[in-house]
Amino acid sequence: MKKRILVDMDDVLADASERILEILNQKNNLSLSKDFFEDKDFYDYVKSNNLKSYRDELNAPGFFGNLNVIPDSQEVLAELSEKHEVFIVSAAMEFPNSLKEKYDWMQTHFPFISWKNIMLCGDKSIVKGDILIDDHEKNLIHFDGETILFDAIHNKKINNYNRISNWLDIKKHILG
Amino acid sequence: MKKRILVDMDDVLADASERILEILNQKNNLSLSKDFFEDKDFYDYVKSNNLKSYRDELNAPGFFGNLNVIPDSQEVLAELSEKHEVFIVSAAMEFPNSLKEKYDWMQTHFPFISWKNIMLCGDKSIVKGDILIDDHEKNLIHFDGETILFDAIHNKKINNYNRISNWLDIKKHILG
Repeated sequence: MKKRILVDMDDVLADASERILEILNQKNNLSLSKDFFEDKDFYDYVKSNNLKSYRDELNAPGFFGNLNVIPDSQEVLAELSEKHEVFIVSAAMEFPNSLKEKYDWMQTHFPFISWKNIMLCGDKSIVKGDILIDDHEKNLIHFDGETILFDAIHNKKINNYNRISNWLDIKKHILG
Repeated sequence: MKKRILVDMDDVLADASERILEILNQKNNLSLSKDFFEDKDFYDYVKSNNLKSYRDELNAPGFFGNLNVIPDSQEVLAELSEKHEVFIVSAAMEFPNSLKEKYDWMQTHFPFISWKNIMLCGDKSIVKGDILIDDHEKNLIHFDGETILFDAIHNKKINNYNRISNWLDIKKHILG
């Protein structure tokens, strides 16, 4: 049976963490890598080390529009789209300058996803579907269907979800 | 009990029909009013009279940003927001230039609605809630909760929904 698969954008399709680390390194004269956070929580580290924040940059024009694509997400979403219904659900409303950029980014990198299947929201508690793939517990927690926590530098402490860390494993999980 | 009330924007909060009629009149040298469509379907009329289309204007900058507010919607939504959870759900993705304009329009006219409660999407079949107020059957048809068809010049032929034609009646219906 066709399933409705809801997919988050930031840190699931678009590599926001990579860019955030660049900004954080620049602002604080550091050279932190993703690997460094394998065994620590990103937010905790930023807070406990009093690092200069990257938050202002998130609403700067170009931030979301220039993010790199997470490896294998294009090929796997294309394949999932053939057998299932794929919807993109991104909590973008906090950063209104990102709205058009996120739409354009999808057109550029995922042209096979129709505008009909893109949703930019504030809070994901009003969406329904069969599977939600997301990197934030606050989004997964309200979801009625199956949840997949996409591994990210800021969710290492979350244990009560099915954590999957790359798109090839998601493909295997959903398509077998 | 708190209900989740999902509210469409165009022709429910924002008077798109008024502006569309202006454009249609201008392009076709007519002087059609909303009253004229009391007993006919708008789309049927445009088609059967071969009128020059208004569609191109919908993606023009400024179209959605400059729409007037539907009477009483501000006061009633403010009141509904005190007792219930109000979410704005607009199918905006077909017109990507409208995304930021719709966000800004909400900030201007409904500042009491948080960005967390705004959702701009392509297809409303993935939203859930208790009540959906919308002027399009294609949006109401997939909804699991209670549906209210907001009266508009283009939905006069739709009979199988609870039609309500103004915000004071919606207030009475929901708050009693």
